[in-house]
Amino acid sequence: MFSKDELASGLQRSRSADLPTPFVEIDEERLERNMQGMQARANAAGVKLFPHIKTHKSYVLAQKQLDFGASGITASKPAEALIFVERGVPSVVLAYPVVQATSLDRLLPAVKARGTQLRVITANEEGVDALAQAAKRHGVSLGVFVKIDVGLGRIGVKPEDPLAIKLVHAILDADHLYFAGLLSHAGHSYGAATVEARTRIANDEAAMLQAVAAKLNAEGISVPCLSVGSTPSCLGAPLPSGLNEIRPGNYVFLDGTALRLEICKPDDLALSIVVRVISSNDERFIFDAGTKSLTSDLGAHGTGGAGYGLVVEADAESGNLWTVEKLSEEHGFVRHDGNAPRVGSRVRIFPNHACAVVAQFDAVTLRKIDGRSVVLPIDARGNQA
Amino acid sequence: MFSKDELASGLQRSRSADLPTPFVEIDEERLERNMQGMQARANAAGVKLFPHIKTHKSYVLAQKQLDFGASGITASKPAEALIFVERGVPSVVLAYPVVQATSLDRLLPAVKARGTQLRVITANEEGVDALAQAAKRHGVSLGVFVKIDVGLGRIGVKPEDPLAIKLVHAILDADHLYFAGLLSHAGHSYGAATVEARTRIANDEAAMLQAVAAKLNAEGISVPCLSVGSTPSCLGAPLPSGLNEIRPGNYVFLDGTALRLEICKPDDLALSIVVRVISSNDERFIFDAGTKSLTSDLGAHGTGGAGYGLVVEADAESGNLWTVEKLSEEHGFVRHDGNAPRVGSRVRIFPNHACAVVAQFDAVTLRKIDGRSVVLPIDARGNQA
Repeated sequence: MFSKDELASGLQRSRSADLPTPFVEIDEERLERNMQGMQARANAAGVKLFPHIKTHKSYVLAQKQLDFGASGITASKPAEALIFVERGVPSVVLAYPVVQATSLDRLLPAVKARGTQLRVITANEEGVDALAQAAKRHGVSLGVFVKIDVGLGRIGVKPEDPLAIKLVHAILDADHLYFAGLLSHAGHSYGAATVEARTRIANDEAAMLQAVAAKLNAEGISVPCLSVGSTPSCLGAPLPSGLNEIRPGNYVFLDGTALRLEICKPDDLALSIVVRVISSNDERFIFDAGTKSLTSDLGAHGTGGAGYGLVVEADAESGNLWTVEKLSEEHGFVRHDGNAPRVGSRVRIFPNHACAVVAQFDAVTLRKIDGRSVVLPIDARGNQA
Repeated sequence: MFSKDELASGLQRSRSADLPTPFVEIDEERLERNMQGMQARANAAGVKLFPHIKTHKSYVLAQKQLDFGASGITASKPAEALIFVERGVPSVVLAYPVVQATSLDRLLPAVKARGTQLRVITANEEGVDALAQAAKRHGVSLGVFVKIDVGLGRIGVKPEDPLAIKLVHAILDADHLYFAGLLSHAGHSYGAATVEARTRIANDEAAMLQAVAAKLNAEGISVPCLSVGSTPSCLGAPLPSGLNEIRPGNYVFLDGTALRLEICKPDDLALSIVVRVISSNDERFIFDAGTKSLTSDLGAHGTGGAGYGLVVEADAESGNLWTVEKLSEEHGFVRHDGNAPRVGSRVRIFPNHACAVVAQFDAVTLRKIDGRSVVLPIDARGNQA
């Protein structure tokens, strides 16, 4: 665990622009360092990087990732993917199980018009039917991964379940679909606090995909791609060999959850929220952001520790460090133990879950390496469908 | 506590439109019943209703509240208030402590142009200074309430603190400011599970405001208004006498939190999220909405019970009732005990905290009394500053 001093000094940031509070500030220098670091890990392991843009929902940031060497992007929902397909991202993994053909009625015309490579996932026969129907209706060719549940217990076929093989056959038999490979998300790595535990999860994940692939190979079916991805398993453990693609998302910003897992240092956090102290009482000071800015998230997939964020002074290097104790919709509560910042001054919050915070804002501020601050629209915000 | 049968039958709703999931559906009949009910309570108690629009952030719904007899609206943030001032709402309470004059640089020109009555709050001398400076700069007259902390421990002067009287004098001494009265928010009523406990909180709140008012009266200062407001204290307890205004917000929709407090019946809930079942495994079924639609809120001000929402089938009256156990960003997990709805079918979620859910969406669906569904923009979404 990082000491209070390590946190207080590692979370110091340059003075930010004088904008109405609260606002999200993204530090471009740290952001690019994080992006380049993951690209270097992918290159060293010989895998392609398809970063998950659910974290930032920003075309400008996706383009940065492509410029640094990413092969395409991953998106959650058809409406989210559409934003990036329309702007010309050449290859998209829609890592979400579509079970109704009409769900792709907006996305596929854009895919067709742009010639985008679109690969999707499935975990049940309803999914294959819906994808085949949608691909046929719109006259596009869709790559389909079979999603394997490697332990999160969310979407996916268990590796030993014969359904996995059955779904591959159904994909191969369907017009307009091609078999893209096997895909998994080891989201349970967010519950793994040591590098050993994460390494075990990452190695198990690779082994499970490889076991299914071996069964397919034995039937003469080649598996074009093994795709994995979660920030804790990609950043906080060595990448196993024998994989082809990784899809981490959160690594661009990192946050209190990543710090708690110690998969990064305090100095790596690229996203914070600048807020103003509006009141102070005997026990707590109150700042002008609550759940409608920071969210109630403790961590990813419901994991998490105590408190809703780490707090440092924004306009002074006092060495003070506090924790956000409680949130109302537009207020944050911090216990100050007699040492409260001045009413009217600004503090900087490092949230538990950066992906969730970005989704609260129509735009954020990008603090450029040259010191300027520019508005960064969150293009796919609100695109939950 | 409501029984499983009472919940399962009381949460049945008419079949909703066939729209891409997830979407928020607001039931106009129940919405209007809730609006009229609160207006009737206000009328019977002889108090003015200034509903808090942070719950819906919609001009159409604010106008409905005005049409039913509300005297104006309450808003949280200057950017939120601006939306309603620009559209001509005649009287606005900005129930948020401004501590920097520039925070009102967008709102006050609109207030001046429209001739809006704007009343704001303060809880410290920094606030009075900022308000006086802003009012002077923009040439408007601002009403200022002194905010009294009646137990939530958030914003406000403790009733016995001489600062309350001092702030009133500072307001009276400032050009461009007038004293609007005393204002409080008994948000701790969200922790009061019985009508007796809420009645005590509401009565204590009224008594605390009246005690401060009596001190002011003794100095020859008249107090134009005593303003209170929280849905549990306004809906779940008798309104104390001697008050002038109430500012509840959540009562228009109600939600799992209101049900848990038993301040309403299952049939009163006017907001739900229609989602699709996308997968099912041995233990759980998974639907296509997570924290980015439902939020991680358990209740208001960090209160709450177990689970992230109540679940019923959306297209069948099966009598089934489930609880949302866990959320990822775009997935919801429901333990099904062997009785899962069909993959591809829709279920309806009644969330813990309706105000938080609305703030995730650019638009929601209003199911009209005549059966049509129309798009309702969430005009002030994302206006956190």
